[in-house]
Amino acid sequence: MEDKAQIQEAIKSQGEVVRKLKSEKASKEQIDEEVAKLLALKAQLGDDGKTQFVLKTPKGTRDYNPKQMAIREKVFNTIIRCFKRHGAETIDTPVFELKETLTGKYGEDSKLIYDLKDQGGELLSLRYDLTVPFARYLAMNKITNIKRYHIAKVYRRDNPAMTRGRYREFYQCDFDIAGQYDAMIPDAECLKIVHEILNELDLGDFRIKVNDRRILDGMFAVCGVPDDKFRTICSTVDKLDKVVFDLSLARGLDYYTGVIYEAVLTQASAVSAANEAQNCANAEESVSVGSVAGGGRYDGLVGMFDPKGRRVPCVGVSIGIERIFSIMEQKAEASPEKVRTTEVQIMVASAQKNLLEERLQLISELWNAGIKAEVMYKKNPKLLSQLQYCEEAGIPLVAILGEQELKDGVVKLRVVATREEVDISRADLISEIKRRTEA
Amino acid sequence: MEDKAQIQEAIKSQGEVVRKLKSEKASKEQIDEEVAKLLALKAQLGDDGKTQFVLKTPKGTRDYNPKQMAIREKVFNTIIRCFKRHGAETIDTPVFELKETLTGKYGEDSKLIYDLKDQGGELLSLRYDLTVPFARYLAMNKITNIKRYHIAKVYRRDNPAMTRGRYREFYQCDFDIAGQYDAMIPDAECLKIVHEILNELDLGDFRIKVNDRRILDGMFAVCGVPDDKFRTICSTVDKLDKVVFDLSLARGLDYYTGVIYEAVLTQASAVSAANEAQNCANAEESVSVGSVAGGGRYDGLVGMFDPKGRRVPCVGVSIGIERIFSIMEQKAEASPEKVRTTEVQIMVASAQKNLLEERLQLISELWNAGIKAEVMYKKNPKLLSQLQYCEEAGIPLVAILGEQELKDGVVKLRVVATREEVDISRADLISEIKRRTEA
Repeated sequence: MEDKAQIQEAIKSQGEVVRKLKSEKASKEQIDEEVAKLLALKAQLGDDGKTQFVLKTPKGTRDYNPKQMAIREKVFNTIIRCFKRHGAETIDTPVFELKETLTGKYGEDSKLIYDLKDQGGELLSLRYDLTVPFARYLAMNKITNIKRYHIAKVYRRDNPAMTRGRYREFYQCDFDIAGQYDAMIPDAECLKIVHEILNELDLGDFRIKVNDRRILDGMFAVCGVPDDKFRTICSTVDKLDKVVFDLSLARGLDYYTGVIYEAVLTQASAVSAANEAQNCANAEESVSVGSVAGGGRYDGLVGMFDPKGRRVPCVGVSIGIERIFSIMEQKAEASPEKVRTTEVQIMVASAQKNLLEERLQLISELWNAGIKAEVMYKKNPKLLSQLQYCEEAGIPLVAILGEQELKDGVVKLRVVATREEVDISRADLISEIKRRTEA
Repeated sequence: MEDKAQIQEAIKSQGEVVRKLKSEKASKEQIDEEVAKLLALKAQLGDDGKTQFVLKTPKGTRDYNPKQMAIREKVFNTIIRCFKRHGAETIDTPVFELKETLTGKYGEDSKLIYDLKDQGGELLSLRYDLTVPFARYLAMNKITNIKRYHIAKVYRRDNPAMTRGRYREFYQCDFDIAGQYDAMIPDAECLKIVHEILNELDLGDFRIKVNDRRILDGMFAVCGVPDDKFRTICSTVDKLDKVVFDLSLARGLDYYTGVIYEAVLTQASAVSAANEAQNCANAEESVSVGSVAGGGRYDGLVGMFDPKGRRVPCVGVSIGIERIFSIMEQKAEASPEKVRTTEVQIMVASAQKNLLEERLQLISELWNAGIKAEVMYKKNPKLLSQLQYCEEAGIPLVAILGEQELKDGVVKLRVVATREEVDISRADLISEIKRRTEA
């Protein structure tokens, strides 16, 4: 940790940076960035001059709390179920790649790649998408046929002027088919998958737009656009407002070579939810409002990794999961139903003092039988506070132990919602809990 | 991308670094590291002088192929089932934190933290474990009670002198209980969880060792060890060969304050599997052979993040999942049973030409009914190659379409294992597939 004098020196010079930018009337983004650095430095010196922590996640990132995780799990399960239904295998790759693996694949977006510090050894960068690592994996393992899905986080140092609310760490859910096959059959399956997932997630009406990079390339050629400007123009066309231009779907990334497509939500409510939350950090999906999936054919990418340039034709789709999360979150907020963050079926409670051991004995039996159960971590909890905990956490049942129940070899089973209570023999307890909660 | 002359210059000077180290008889690790850099540079210049890619994952990382993913999913499911049985919620945090969030938490191990390059903005580091981000999350959100699990990758630039085979990117599976509770009740639940998980994963005999940091601290105090040397000595004691020393379980990390424990496999086969694969990158678990879980109480960590130093007592356990993966992989290798990497129930095949549309029509019906199904991406695949694909991929059923079947409104259902074939009406097909595969 740096010492106090050093930090004060740094505060002084950072203060001057900020003053200079203000006097030069620099952009708000630039000034905000430098002010943030100044505040971070100042926070290191607390009121008492002791070093202090800034309690935040890095810019452009967030934590997921248990409620958000419950929603995320539900969305992932729907998507994974669809991918598996279509016979996809799954793989995983490291979160960082050799820097040179990512170089030259993304065109203008390359400036948004996070690099790791050179601490000796290889130069590394965080993955920018899952497609380039997939192509590297195929070339490295000489795989020519695979249908795989990959759900993982990717990283983009989104341009501050564009970022407002967009995440720098976000999930991608990719499904890709690699292999030399008859025309358009795998391409059609990708579209079918987008359709199934958006249907099943119940996000309202949507439209899937389809185009082909070769048509655009042809148009540009006819218009006399020089070859080396094609990709820059595609990126620009993709950012046009889609009412204005017709064959406008171009996708920003360099590697597409054939069919390209994008799914957009068309219901006003969903679109506004997606925009309000501004959750999508995906640069190429940034402008088309309500875009929730996109992809296309990239037949040249794997060959860029192969020493002999062997081609492995690929087509794939990426689900814009961050927008979907935010829509689902808003739906959950609006619904009267409470999102449960655990699946606990029963609380083991006691009606009298000094029954800790008996509670632990019973809950062990339940755990060993696969029942999801909780106990309060107190020697002598009040019955009322145990019941209140159940109401708050949405736990449907309580098993209450008392001296009399222990003598009789029974447990008082209480239904939280109705407050109905019934004595159940210890021998029947597990099947009774399963009967009541695993309907 | 750097140009050719620059790379040749770099190769020349790197060659001299290697020669110098060799002449100085430097350690093998040091020389290997510099030779690797030299080879990486040379690989950039192909035979024809064109720049070329090195096809590898970064040092200390690996891809997971579909077979490894199938095993990983099975292990995760067992562990998550246990965490949920105990009523834990789950959270997620970003893969990187502000550098200062991690500073001063890990003692000597801090030198193994990956930093991100300063590209303007905040100074960031990759998370080193899930415990410090958890403490930051609690302090930031002023949470004083939570039982949560978190399964995610963490990053350690393991000291090259120690690394041989250890991973720099690896999973941690953490379960922690935060809150002011009666003594030892949550601590005991953590031990119960370790016991349940190791039992259910069927890894053979194991022993859970328990100690308390305060006993060690007391011993050191009695021995006259100065306060500021306690943590360094704990780290050293933890690395002793455990036959040699008795109260030796100390856990390497700085933040433990009370009970500490570690689970070790005691069956020779499992231990040798764990060692052979050397999969554990976990510095604090590196020496105790067969260690597959560990944890303890850390009552002071959250307070380090709280501006008012408010304490949130915590106790938790981390499952050493990389070792468990490698043991499960070896078991799968040794078993005659084939690991399936998909769950496909049926292949939609055709016996004659020109039935692509009919195949796609049928498979759409199956997908819409939730059946996991595949079709070959060829206009006119041979029946034999469709059947062979099923045998290789372990797909149990084939639905065969031909002119006659289409006329009769039936599908020929073939059981791959027995070659038995039976005509099923289109109306009954879905329930028949479910009956045969969802037993």
